[in-house]
Amino acid sequence: MKREEALAIVRKQLKEQRYIHTLGVMETAVELAALYGADVQQAELAAIFHDYAKFRSKEEMKHIIIEQQMPQDLLMYSPELWHAPVGAYLVQTEVGIQDEHILNAIRYHTSGRPNMTLLEKIVYIADYIEPNRSFPGVDDVRALAREHIDRALLRALQNTIRFLMGKNEPIYPDTFHTYNDIAKKLKGVGNS
Amino acid sequence: MKREEALAIVRKQLKEQRYIHTLGVMETAVELAALYGADVQQAELAAIFHDYAKFRSKEEMKHIIIEQQMPQDLLMYSPELWHAPVGAYLVQTEVGIQDEHILNAIRYHTSGRPNMTLLEKIVYIADYIEPNRSFPGVDDVRALAREHIDRALLRALQNTIRFLMGKNEPIYPDTFHTYNDIAKKLKGVGNS
Repeated sequence: MKREEALAIVRKQLKEQRYIHTLGVMETAVELAALYGADVQQAELAAIFHDYAKFRSKEEMKHIIIEQQMPQDLLMYSPELWHAPVGAYLVQTEVGIQDEHILNAIRYHTSGRPNMTLLEKIVYIADYIEPNRSFPGVDDVRALAREHIDRALLRALQNTIRFLMGKNEPIYPDTFHTYNDIAKKLKGVGNS
Repeated sequence: MKREEALAIVRKQLKEQRYIHTLGVMETAVELAALYGADVQQAELAAIFHDYAKFRSKEEMKHIIIEQQMPQDLLMYSPELWHAPVGAYLVQTEVGIQDEHILNAIRYHTSGRPNMTLLEKIVYIADYIEPNRSFPGVDDVRALAREHIDRALLRALQNTIRFLMGKNEPIYPDTFHTYNDIAKKLKGVGNS
């Protein structure tokens, strides 16, 4: 699928600000894919569609999580997490994208997961640092993203965990397991 | 077992500073047990013996973790965690204490675990706030400990997770699961 066709599809799903964010993620993902030798077209499509389900109702997302037998513990954590796996499902069934690499990059762009692929890391980081983002710590992750993607990912996960803990919020276990996975790899210790 | 007998046993296992720390944990645990209506004698014995294995060699602790079929993932995280489950084992086998409540309070005093008992929380918090402790954030937890033990526990876990993340260290999953367990309970959401 060509960029313009994909953008036209996703534009109908998003509010203006979210579409602008999506363009930023697209540009950043393409840049990082070129930098790290990932497939640029996969990165571009995954980025374009990463927030495809962002404005679906909680009811619809909950229904899909249950019906499609996604991890049911999603329902016990923030609904902010739901659009990622639901988006992967809808991009497959409504848009017709079958590339599992792209679908997984959409699926795990909010929670992360252990053993993320390079493409998954690129979309996760691009979503975090795209030029329209502005929050404490984002510039550090921006700089790290061009130097060492795993160190950027570790920092982004630390920021996310700190932010949620600051609100006394539960943290989705995959986010924490992703932190441990990357922390262990950077320390060079075995991974369980 | 009487306090004096227990103290005489544990004193032989510890360096001076660690014995002084143990006396602080004992006093604090007794105070918290009285405050929250836990069994004071269980709290006192668990506190006295909580660091029983602190100065065993890594080799001995590793051997016991493997031989006694303790959770093997312990070996992939900081050795600082090992003295707690190994201590529970040695307090049972060398000292002869059979009370599972006491042994579990020793076993989980470093990592925590989901669904901690009141006694386990008391020993965890007493270890964190005893009067000889001095580190950033300890006074907040000290104050909370007298008001609401779960809020004190949440704060202590947040501090510990922040501290480890600041060093890019992996975090033992039980510590994280304990944070989520308490965070969910304080928010009043269902627990997985």
